[in-house]
Amino acid sequence: MIRAAIIGATGYTGIDAIEIILKHPQAKVTYLTASSDTAVPAAKMHPRLTGRCDLDIEPLNFDKLAEVADVALCCLPHKVSMEFVPQMLKKGVKVVDFSADYRIKDVAVYEAHYSKHTDTANIAKAVYGLPELYRELIKKTNLVANPGCFPTSVSLGLAPLLKKGMIKTSGIVVNSVSGASGAGKKLADGLHFPNLNENLRPYSIGNHRHTPEMEQIASDIASKPVTLLFQPHIGCYDRGILSSIYSDPVSDITSGDLLELYREFYRNEPFVQVLSTPPAVKDVANTNYCHIHPAVVKGKIVVFSAIDNLVKGASGQAVQNMNILFGVDERLGLM
Amino acid sequence: MIRAAIIGATGYTGIDAIEIILKHPQAKVTYLTASSDTAVPAAKMHPRLTGRCDLDIEPLNFDKLAEVADVALCCLPHKVSMEFVPQMLKKGVKVVDFSADYRIKDVAVYEAHYSKHTDTANIAKAVYGLPELYRELIKKTNLVANPGCFPTSVSLGLAPLLKKGMIKTSGIVVNSVSGASGAGKKLADGLHFPNLNENLRPYSIGNHRHTPEMEQIASDIASKPVTLLFQPHIGCYDRGILSSIYSDPVSDITSGDLLELYREFYRNEPFVQVLSTPPAVKDVANTNYCHIHPAVVKGKIVVFSAIDNLVKGASGQAVQNMNILFGVDERLGLM
Amino acid sequence: MIRAAIIGATGYTGIDAIEIILKHPQAKVTYLTASSDTAVPAAKMHPRLTGRCDLDIEPLNFDKLAEVADVALCCLPHKVSMEFVPQMLKKGVKVVDFSADYRIKDVAVYEAHYSKHTDTANIAKAVYGLPELYRELIKKTNLVANPGCFPTSVSLGLAPLLKKGMIKTSGIVVNSVSGASGAGKKLADGLHFPNLNENLRPYSIGNHRHTPEMEQIASDIASKPVTLLFQPHIGCYDRGILSSIYSDPVSDITSGDLLELYREFYRNEPFVQVLSTPPAVKDVANTNYCHIHPAVVKGKIVVFSAIDNLVKGASGQAVQNMNILFGVDERLGLM
Amino acid sequence: MIRAAIIGATGYTGIDAIEIILKHPQAKVTYLTASSDTAVPAAKMHPRLTGRCDLDIEPLNFDKLAEVADVALCCLPHKVSMEFVPQMLKKGVKVVDFSADYRIKDVAVYEAHYSKHTDTANIAKAVYGLPELYRELIKKTNLVANPGCFPTSVSLGLAPLLKKGMIKTSGIVVNSVSGASGAGKKLADGLHFPNLNENLRPYSIGNHRHTPEMEQIASDIASKPVTLLFQPHIGCYDRGILSSIYSDPVSDITSGDLLELYREFYRNEPFVQVLSTPPAVKDVANTNYCHIHPAVVKGKIVVFSAIDNLVKGASGQAVQNMNILFGVDERLGLM
Repeated sequence: MIRAAIIGATGYTGIDAIEIILKHPQAKVTYLTASSDTAVPAAKMHPRLTGRCDLDIEPLNFDKLAEVADVALCCLPHKVSMEFVPQMLKKGVKVVDFSADYRIKDVAVYEAHYSKHTDTANIAKAVYGLPELYRELIKKTNLVANPGCFPTSVSLGLAPLLKKGMIKTSGIVVNSVSGASGAGKKLADGLHFPNLNENLRPYSIGNHRHTPEMEQIASDIASKPVTLLFQPHIGCYDRGILSSIYSDPVSDITSGDLLELYREFYRNEPFVQVLSTPPAVKDVANTNYCHIHPAVVKGKIVVFSAIDNLVKGASGQAVQNMNILFGVDERLGLM
Repeated sequence: MIRAAIIGATGYTGIDAIEIILKHPQAKVTYLTASSDTAVPAAKMHPRLTGRCDLDIEPLNFDKLAEVADVALCCLPHKVSMEFVPQMLKKGVKVVDFSADYRIKDVAVYEAHYSKHTDTANIAKAVYGLPELYRELIKKTNLVANPGCFPTSVSLGLAPLLKKGMIKTSGIVVNSVSGASGAGKKLADGLHFPNLNENLRPYSIGNHRHTPEMEQIASDIASKPVTLLFQPHIGCYDRGILSSIYSDPVSDITSGDLLELYREFYRNEPFVQVLSTPPAVKDVANTNYCHIHPAVVKGKIVVFSAIDNLVKGASGQAVQNMNILFGVDERLGLM
Repeated sequence: MIRAAIIGATGYTGIDAIEIILKHPQAKVTYLTASSDTAVPAAKMHPRLTGRCDLDIEPLNFDKLAEVADVALCCLPHKVSMEFVPQMLKKGVKVVDFSADYRIKDVAVYEAHYSKHTDTANIAKAVYGLPELYRELIKKTNLVANPGCFPTSVSLGLAPLLKKGMIKTSGIVVNSVSGASGAGKKLADGLHFPNLNENLRPYSIGNHRHTPEMEQIASDIASKPVTLLFQPHIGCYDRGILSSIYSDPVSDITSGDLLELYREFYRNEPFVQVLSTPPAVKDVANTNYCHIHPAVVKGKIVVFSAIDNLVKGASGQAVQNMNILFGVDERLGLM
Repeated sequence: MIRAAIIGATGYTGIDAIEIILKHPQAKVTYLTASSDTAVPAAKMHPRLTGRCDLDIEPLNFDKLAEVADVALCCLPHKVSMEFVPQMLKKGVKVVDFSADYRIKDVAVYEAHYSKHTDTANIAKAVYGLPELYRELIKKTNLVANPGCFPTSVSLGLAPLLKKGMIKTSGIVVNSVSGASGAGKKLADGLHFPNLNENLRPYSIGNHRHTPEMEQIASDIASKPVTLLFQPHIGCYDRGILSSIYSDPVSDITSGDLLELYREFYRNEPFVQVLSTPPAVKDVANTNYCHIHPAVVKGKIVVFSAIDNLVKGASGQAVQNMNILFGVDERLGLM
């Protein structure tokens, strides 16, 4: 039985991680922490958990963590993660980190988009936790940098094309729409119900922090520099990212061949499903699945990639990574 | 041309008041104020107004108010209103006040539910601004206490029964659901999109401040004390209140007779429509209409009453009152 | 391993039943049927199931059913169920029936609200599948009449009061709001997105078919006739019923004592949680839990009861019943 | 007073047209028609109109039309329009046609995407009703082809760039999301509330009928052939289209210069507002405004264009065209 701690258990990814592990046949939640000073019953913070989880959410204590947990699912924001992760690792606890702190390999790039990095030593050791691309490396690490939600949808959508060298590596346009849970639980005018309900709007024009993460992974897959224009939007629903990705093929290809290529590429992947029809975010909501549909339209390749931003885009993928770290069936708790 | 000032122009009732008056053929918005220190273009605060309203939203200046406006639609919260309203009245500006400060006639009741009252003198002068019941009084006052949103739906729903003495005046159950805009623009966990979306929940169990207001008006209509149990809920939509009102008839009546009674009662009211089918909040959204459907079910009288909480429940009713104050067609700007 | 067939696998309760059993550690889905003439892959009908379920949805064959399944979760509409259930039982397959056909004990009452009954013999043998009240009987039957969604919320909300004789057995008002999934997958004007979105409306005024079912169970609990006024509404969200129940206590009681009474009554029930704060439908969405909060308000007892209409109100409760039928831990697949 | 008939008054564009004209100070609705055999009160079909519109919706009679109306807002689907429009014109009634039947100038293109055209003579006479581009022509015609909703958002978004020759005329990507009302009132699985709520999905991949319309107008503006990849999506809200348009500049330009260019281009247009911040569909809901924000991102020009699909994308624009046809202030009824 894998003993899992949820570090930062008060947010949306935290509660999803708890719920997933509550259903996991070979893992259990043993420790819940948050930045508050006092312990609060988890069911008080999250009424959904009433009768299902008797733990308190406590201030983080590293000794206790090491004592009761084998792995920490670290749902902290960037900058906070890099303060805590080194101490967890030192205590011998494996870490799946949800923040951006260990995703970006180039410190200068990280610091340009986030803040000063104070744990650069661990960046090199961290493995980017996209199992479909880095499964073998994940098996051997103690620190998994769980991917961002948008980058998960985009990397899976582009991987077959980039791996096979089928598209131009510049001029790629990524138009993504995320549900509101992606913005987290922090109150903001743009997330106030009467402001977001019945609404749709672009944001972070030209400067979303997930762009360098996407470009790093895309370049790694392609083995050469890839640039892309990523434009996020926020929609009036809870869960789900739909990325509509437009790129230019280097040579002619039909929609049929493209579909076959994707099917072959993901044939053995349990959580990536290539559809012959357009995906819908609702079909992946509350699941760890990524639904992909590629097509050739007017000389461009269009790929639609849909995930649940909180599951395959965060907590589900973290559990998938946890399963890999501990050598159990990758699908446990996620089917 | 009626010159209207909107005092407190940054909230949801403020912008609705502006939009309604922009379409009003005999009124215009001449002054917008808010509690900020500096003037901000209205279109910057409310992008909806871009190209439609060139005014700034300014700090309130009573001299300027008196100079440029004939009437103030005062969209301030309770307690703040009672500080400002006396000064507006002294300057000779008529006031339609959206707060609770002048609705409750009994100061002790007001103070038990709100806070200490510092302008009791004007309470007596204020007229409760439900035109269907107090039109003649509204014509003669300078201070209209614009009704609360829930009380509007309930008072209109119960008036025919209470006026005719057809129901018991205790044991009335009012089950209301409001859209999220009723809770205002102030950020709160319960109004955070991912918390309210796909949700429905009761709140203020046994202690909502609109209860004494409803009971005061109901008692006034019935000419004897009426008590009722009012239970509000909040739903995941923007606009609209549906009140489902359950009461006990004093003698047998059929649904057909009841419908006829309501139709007769509201025959000449432009904004109250008695339907022979169940009302829906969407049918009154963005309108100043109240849709009512009464029925006899298992020995009880059930009345459904639907309004848009921001229009007939606030800004539309305020404009209706303004029209009455100035002797123009009550329907102007609202049809 | 319990082998479960889903009869009527194309609707909302069907897919929820499939998804729940896919996660059940001691049950598996072995047969999916629908009324179509040809077999269709389940994943084609429900893209959510892509990669998760390889079965086809086939025309129902009773021999095959008996061969591959131990239990049938029969998600058919009333009238259709009573044609098929006798044949399933004859083949030795246990049945959890989702329709109303075996819920109402009094044939005359059934026929007054539904249609002519052609399998009255099995009505007597059927056990009403509300485990919190009829667990011991469920253990011994082969035919469970899975309760309606509204009746589940209401029976659990009222049971402690009726069992203890604490309220008057007439004059009870039940105001319920259901999400749209409760109305099923059949297209209808009232369920067309632009008609229901941002809407809330009452329906079936005075004549909803769940009323006699509620009254039968309530009367059984109280051991005397109970009548109630049930008024359903439909809201603009997917999942969840909130029933707000108003009744008159026979003697004085405090909110604190009431809360204690409920806690004691449901102390050993895994899926009923008594909260000290108001419930919210979102907190029970996608779970088999019922959240209840009772309070005394102005001399009345108000009980709020929230469930997911598709889970505790249908497929989850069916799996709970299936677990009881087969003597496994009632909570399997549902925690 | 302009006397307007609404032909096809039962759909979403029909009711919006009625509501807009009800508020129009110099127009009135004099005739409502639908394809039914018998007359039905408009308020029965659309409860929103209760007390606001006493007309019946009747079977269409061309003589009566000519007698009571100066203009027909023809809200019929394509193919039906071309049967009726010639007869209206013959009777001397001006027509604003909402269908695609008179938008596409090239009959072969029309027939490839729609159906056989039986009124080609009037295609040449029809003027494309986008006032910002064709105002002078609209003034002189009797037949306005009211633009499609997506093409309105895209044409306004691209016009300054194409007119000034600033972008390459191929490789343009248009990623649009529409609210559900754009799909009309006809029941469909994809529009069933539980299927569309909380959902977002692409549709009509590579073959949406609005593509040739967009390309025709874009080519006309650019005075040379323009091709674009248009990808529509449907979202879970009622009103609004957001088009995110990606194109390649022919030479370097800054975001600041781009913004200035757009402001200058639309300086005198009452209903197009160029914003310095991202637009939101909710800010244009229930208005006739188009909000545009252009930016330079990673060497591409990105333009966001938001409209209400039922207002500027249909009924509001039709009234704007009607105003132009009759020489009254273009803004009447729309501010």
